[in-house]
Parts: sequence; structure tokens; C-alpha cells
Amino acid sequence: MSYRVHVRVMPRTGLLDPQGQAVEHALAALGFAGAGDVRVGRAIELELAADSPAEAESEARRMCERLLANPVTEDFELEVEAR
Amino acid sequence: MSYRVHVRVMPRTGLLDPQGQAVEHALAALGFAGAGDVRVGRAIELELAADSPAEAESEARRMCERLLANPVTEDFELEVEAR
Repeated sequence: MSYRVHVRVMPRTGLLDPQGQAVEHALAALGFAGAGDVRVGRAIELELAADSPAEAESEARRMCERLLANPVTEDFELEVEAR
Repeated sequence: MSYRVHVRVMPRTGLLDPQGQAVEHALAALGFAGAGDVRVGRAIELELAADSPAEAESEARRMCERLLANPVTEDFELEVEAR
């Protein structure tokens, strides 16, 4: 079976996020007054061949730990979607 | 009311995604054989003050059109979460 995996990698809460701050300031400058606590991370999508959704998730988790996320500064979330 | 908005900005399907290709090659080099069609985009989260989820979504959509996404090369998806 093939699965579509959506990964969201975000700067860990409490850590400085200069890109998020830059976006927050830019939004304010454009007149979007109601926005705050902006955080910017990475969204990664991939196709994964696996026997079950659980296996796909576990494989994607290993990919995050090895490559996709920085374990010191980032947190990640996974969603697995059957194709 | 305050809402947490999750935005996913991805390179448009069919457009070249060099960052996604680099990740795909790196995953293969690390021994993750089952991964393909890797796409890398941005995940943006923000707090938004609005009167309803629909208003929050509409405001976030305007933010994407004005600043967060490139309308020529990127697509975006929104999720609004009540706090």
C-alpha cells in the first residue's frame, strides 16, 4: 500500500523564531492587526510504501528523527493518509 | 475569540521542487527505500483574534494571498482551531 505522509516541523515552543517574528511584523505592517504568536516551520509531504498506516507512521517518525527535524530545536507532527 | 490557524504552503504540483528532491535523495542515501515524491513547503501557525471560525479563516486566507504564499508558484491550505 502507498500512503501520503504529511509532516509538520516547527521550532520548539519557547525557542526564538526570527522568521516567525519577521512575518508577524510584516503582517502588522500590512494592516493585519489581529495576528500574534506567529511561528514558521517546514511542511514536508511524501509518498511512502508500507504494509499498514502504523508502519508508514513509524517509518516517517524515523525519517524525522534522522533527517527531517532537528531534535534539539524542533518538534514534529505526522499525519498519514491512505491513497 | 482567539483562534490558532495552521497554514500549509506547498510548491504547486508540477513545479520543480529542488528542496524536495534533495530530501528525497538524502532519505535514499540513509537507507529509507520506500519514500518518493517528496515536497517541501512551509508550515505557519498564528494566533488570530476573530468573531467566528469563518472570519478567522477568511482573514487568514487574505494573509496568505498578500504575504504568506506566492500565488504564482505555491498553493496553501488552512486549518482553524478554536482555543
